[in-house]
Amino acid sequence: MEKIAVATTGGDAPGMNCAIRAVVRTSLYYGMKIFGIRRGFRGLYEDDIFEMNSRDVSGIINEVGTILKSMRFSEFTDKKIREVAFQNLKKRGIEGLIVIGGDGSAKGAYSIFSDFNFPVVLIPASIDNDLYGTDYTVGFDTAVNTAVEAIDRIRDTATSHERIFIIEVMGREKGNLAVEIALACGAEIVLIPEKKIDWDEVFDELENQVKRGKVSSLIILAEGAGKAPEVAKILQKKFPEREIRFSILGYIQRGGKPTYFTRTLATKFGFEAVKMLKDGNYGYMVGFKNEEIVHIPLKEVVSGKKLPSFENLKLIKIMSI
Amino acid sequence: MEKIAVATTGGDAPGMNCAIRAVVRTSLYYGMKIFGIRRGFRGLYEDDIFEMNSRDVSGIINEVGTILKSMRFSEFTDKKIREVAFQNLKKRGIEGLIVIGGDGSAKGAYSIFSDFNFPVVLIPASIDNDLYGTDYTVGFDTAVNTAVEAIDRIRDTATSHERIFIIEVMGREKGNLAVEIALACGAEIVLIPEKKIDWDEVFDELENQVKRGKVSSLIILAEGAGKAPEVAKILQKKFPEREIRFSILGYIQRGGKPTYFTRTLATKFGFEAVKMLKDGNYGYMVGFKNEEIVHIPLKEVVSGKKLPSFENLKLIKIMSI
Amino acid sequence: MEKIAVATTGGDAPGMNCAIRAVVRTSLYYGMKIFGIRRGFRGLYEDDIFEMNSRDVSGIINEVGTILKSMRFSEFTDKKIREVAFQNLKKRGIEGLIVIGGDGSAKGAYSIFSDFNFPVVLIPASIDNDLYGTDYTVGFDTAVNTAVEAIDRIRDTATSHERIFIIEVMGREKGNLAVEIALACGAEIVLIPEKKIDWDEVFDELENQVKRGKVSSLIILAEGAGKAPEVAKILQKKFPEREIRFSILGYIQRGGKPTYFTRTLATKFGFEAVKMLKDGNYGYMVGFKNEEIVHIPLKEVVSGKKLPSFENLKLIKIMSI
Amino acid sequence: MEKIAVATTGGDAPGMNCAIRAVVRTSLYYGMKIFGIRRGFRGLYEDDIFEMNSRDVSGIINEVGTILKSMRFSEFTDKKIREVAFQNLKKRGIEGLIVIGGDGSAKGAYSIFSDFNFPVVLIPASIDNDLYGTDYTVGFDTAVNTAVEAIDRIRDTATSHERIFIIEVMGREKGNLAVEIALACGAEIVLIPEKKIDWDEVFDELENQVKRGKVSSLIILAEGAGKAPEVAKILQKKFPEREIRFSILGYIQRGGKPTYFTRTLATKFGFEAVKMLKDGNYGYMVGFKNEEIVHIPLKEVVSGKKLPSFENLKLIKIMSI
Repeated sequence: MEKIAVATTGGDAPGMNCAIRAVVRTSLYYGMKIFGIRRGFRGLYEDDIFEMNSRDVSGIINEVGTILKSMRFSEFTDKKIREVAFQNLKKRGIEGLIVIGGDGSAKGAYSIFSDFNFPVVLIPASIDNDLYGTDYTVGFDTAVNTAVEAIDRIRDTATSHERIFIIEVMGREKGNLAVEIALACGAEIVLIPEKKIDWDEVFDELENQVKRGKVSSLIILAEGAGKAPEVAKILQKKFPEREIRFSILGYIQRGGKPTYFTRTLATKFGFEAVKMLKDGNYGYMVGFKNEEIVHIPLKEVVSGKKLPSFENLKLIKIMSI
Repeated sequence: MEKIAVATTGGDAPGMNCAIRAVVRTSLYYGMKIFGIRRGFRGLYEDDIFEMNSRDVSGIINEVGTILKSMRFSEFTDKKIREVAFQNLKKRGIEGLIVIGGDGSAKGAYSIFSDFNFPVVLIPASIDNDLYGTDYTVGFDTAVNTAVEAIDRIRDTATSHERIFIIEVMGREKGNLAVEIALACGAEIVLIPEKKIDWDEVFDELENQVKRGKVSSLIILAEGAGKAPEVAKILQKKFPEREIRFSILGYIQRGGKPTYFTRTLATKFGFEAVKMLKDGNYGYMVGFKNEEIVHIPLKEVVSGKKLPSFENLKLIKIMSI
Repeated sequence: MEKIAVATTGGDAPGMNCAIRAVVRTSLYYGMKIFGIRRGFRGLYEDDIFEMNSRDVSGIINEVGTILKSMRFSEFTDKKIREVAFQNLKKRGIEGLIVIGGDGSAKGAYSIFSDFNFPVVLIPASIDNDLYGTDYTVGFDTAVNTAVEAIDRIRDTATSHERIFIIEVMGREKGNLAVEIALACGAEIVLIPEKKIDWDEVFDELENQVKRGKVSSLIILAEGAGKAPEVAKILQKKFPEREIRFSILGYIQRGGKPTYFTRTLATKFGFEAVKMLKDGNYGYMVGFKNEEIVHIPLKEVVSGKKLPSFENLKLIKIMSI
Repeated sequence: MEKIAVATTGGDAPGMNCAIRAVVRTSLYYGMKIFGIRRGFRGLYEDDIFEMNSRDVSGIINEVGTILKSMRFSEFTDKKIREVAFQNLKKRGIEGLIVIGGDGSAKGAYSIFSDFNFPVVLIPASIDNDLYGTDYTVGFDTAVNTAVEAIDRIRDTATSHERIFIIEVMGREKGNLAVEIALACGAEIVLIPEKKIDWDEVFDELENQVKRGKVSSLIILAEGAGKAPEVAKILQKKFPEREIRFSILGYIQRGGKPTYFTRTLATKFGFEAVKMLKDGNYGYMVGFKNEEIVHIPLKEVVSGKKLPSFENLKLIKIMSI
């Protein structure tokens, strides 16, 4: 394989630039030509492709976002669109494609692979850590740290005032991000989409905390489990005398500078992805399982389901004693 | 004057602890006894008062919040309540009171002073910088920096995606915070309560930015000027093809670690407030005007009005070229 | 087991407070009494021991340092000293001891266990990640992130000036910290004690980087491999025309706020350590291997040797292309 | 005036990019052409000059360093070199020059102005805040905050161990930076070049602190007043039983992201500098005095001397009670 290409697709995640850097430099190390695709699958379709060199990725290791730009491109579900994209690769003699992205990117990557038997490798990058087959995605560690830092600030405020504080965090329809944030923040309660909210349990827990002498309570709410203003209303109705506040963390969570772990993971994934193409291992996602680099068939990735850590849910409960 | 007391009242602001530290240590330096009042005017009314020493304020210079706790206490508008509070000071032989807080605290401080001719000095502390008579309040510099840092993160995300981003910031019915944040973030547009929103002007400005080659636009919205979701709706209706997102910064703005400027200002104010009581200068707010410590009569403070910098509004416009 | 005690010993590491919190709360959850020992082995010897409750560990999850204080106490190698320490535990009816610390703490913990067959569990906490038997120690992830953040700042400066920059980092006689920092910073060269410095190779590498178009080079130097001023002198002699600067990161590396990973690891370790005592598993260090909690005999811990990742050394080289 | 140029010279300071941005955009706002000079006076001499547009300064408001690069260039003291530089401006029809930099830059700027009566304006940018005629330089607020943040981290460590900690900070032959850092950090002692060290006073002060119950002492040492290892040695000799540590902050101090105040000051200075050229006000530094923009003749700037705040020195003493 002499020519490969790389794209970032879907919502951006911290560390995507590190992954691009690793892909570019590993390709050059192995003597391959490497092409960048701007704006993900849209750029692939619109033929926005250019050759990259080592200096193109200088100084981006600690930069947020992606130098290749990333966009959602729903039209890519249309096979005719993909056919155009495939021809754009082919006409340049590009023999392999590395896609850096999350859930939706996995589907896109898999469809190129299955439609045209084109050599594709996926690098999982998403703040939601919602991809089946890997313990961690590029960007997740950063997003949790960013959220934890922001919540520390809010909690500092909260402890001056004796409140119930509800923090809505990202994660789309998954609770992975919320559970990790809750454990790291010392939150008393976490509400996730994978577990129906039992309001009586929540009320009891909040009452018991007061009995145990807690002056403030912190609730982490996954966006997939409910809306902060509504949860606040329900709690205020039950506890009219308590001061209840909420905050929606929002886009800040995407914008943290990549942490050490995110950078290292992105670098390892980038290296491995190129090596996989070189070695003829196609149609996989590169993953990290039990501290080892693994290859997961894209077919499994798109159909599998990742669950939050129920063991950590238990720890959150014990730690709120 | 041999015995004085200090309280933090109203919403908390970064640097309140520095101000407490300065008050305590200056009092001891001058050989005065110093008492802390817990939970602001509520604690004053409920007689939650204790003597403080130098070690009580060790290691708090960089801590968020207030070790004396701070609460809003609307009952303090009732003169009977204030009478009880006054008696609590009197019975301990406390001869002077330093109040650390914002807008509402100024009113409370002024009423104790005018009701009982009791020696009171106010240290302005508020993230909103909304107090008449001082260029800066304790906490303002920190809150702007905290907001700017958060918005940098969001903007980094925004530049990957070519969006209009609306950020709602605090400031209650004032635009000071929003204007300073907007200038420091390089926002293209700022919307404040002191200036009616001219939607046609906003639309024109956004259209012109595209013509000038800008790929994303950042709008800072003071909470007193509107709600982010509604502004987003208006813009989306006008520009259906553009990606419009919003974020409400919320309580994060209160929780930043005090910056250098906030710490230094709080220290200077704390020192001066004690000195004022010692020298018999009562019924004033200590302020900072043109890089000098000044004394502003509380009467002026409660009736005066602070405006945002219109010069900075002009600079924001020029810088968005 | 009804009464256990906890101490932090040796150099402090971020996350020690999280570990204390987890130990205290898990003990209470299981209905055990929990005692804190102040100042590590010194306090154990001097009988500075007190019972702890859940509120004692409120709000410390994000605090640097250790509320129990930590000190090096070389006298503890004397068995007579340890005998006194042992009696202090015994007379209170304390049946188990959890030691939170690094290399030296492992030796102390092992000697109490082997001398008196006293139930001891070690929680590995050290910024150096130098303990055999665990992939990660409490504090390591934080220290790497703190260093990386500081080096990002220095590097930003460096790229304005076209320099060779040498950064000396901690790690004592081990290179683990330096290797991880180097990979995450995108350093071109890393010098560690486990590998004799080949100056000709370093010179060649630096010359090649210039040929490849690099305008600045970053060298991470483990403190165990050499002193920054001396390395600077050697390079300056070889390259008299280049601007060579160095920085010694120093104690900043110990003082970062615990990251998400550090907090979570500390919480898991604290929980497990109590459970081990409860279940009769003594004389172990709790460790984290391949994403799983493991138990490593203290005897192995004190005699084993942990090596830096040679795979990451290779990646550093490839990434500097 | 239709064509002007801008350069950053000397050591770089955070916020230089904000100043460049403001200069470029204000020039375009007034319909002038604006040229960037790379690498300061060296680039001016080597004719490394290019026209800039508004997009060239997009997204740099929060970036460290300077997109124009900055270098010390000692050859510029030679009038023949300056003659070449002047001709490079002249041949392009450039009618005015804005220099962004510190002490040395002021001398360079003044010599161009006085040699050729060429319209020059200086924007003071330096982390040292050592320029006569302005209360603040671009970058100073950021450098103090960066140092304070780092020292907070070190202090957190210190309080776990009961030490004397000496922190050497930048500032070259001036103590301004050290004094502001010391006040904001709550340091007990500050040593500056403007005041000969009285060791007996230092010893007494350290002894008294122990008597007053302080468990750790923090000394801020300006680099112009001494070397940290030597100060440590002197103290260790006097207090052999105490744990004495030191840290040299070094280049980190240059690399912080510009704070709100730095950004705003840089923006105001950039705007004003262009306006001054436009209005025919040459040979000045733009400054900030008592919260107002002022113009200081370069002749005064190069001969004047800026002193640290002796009032703040007194406050440091009172606060260490």
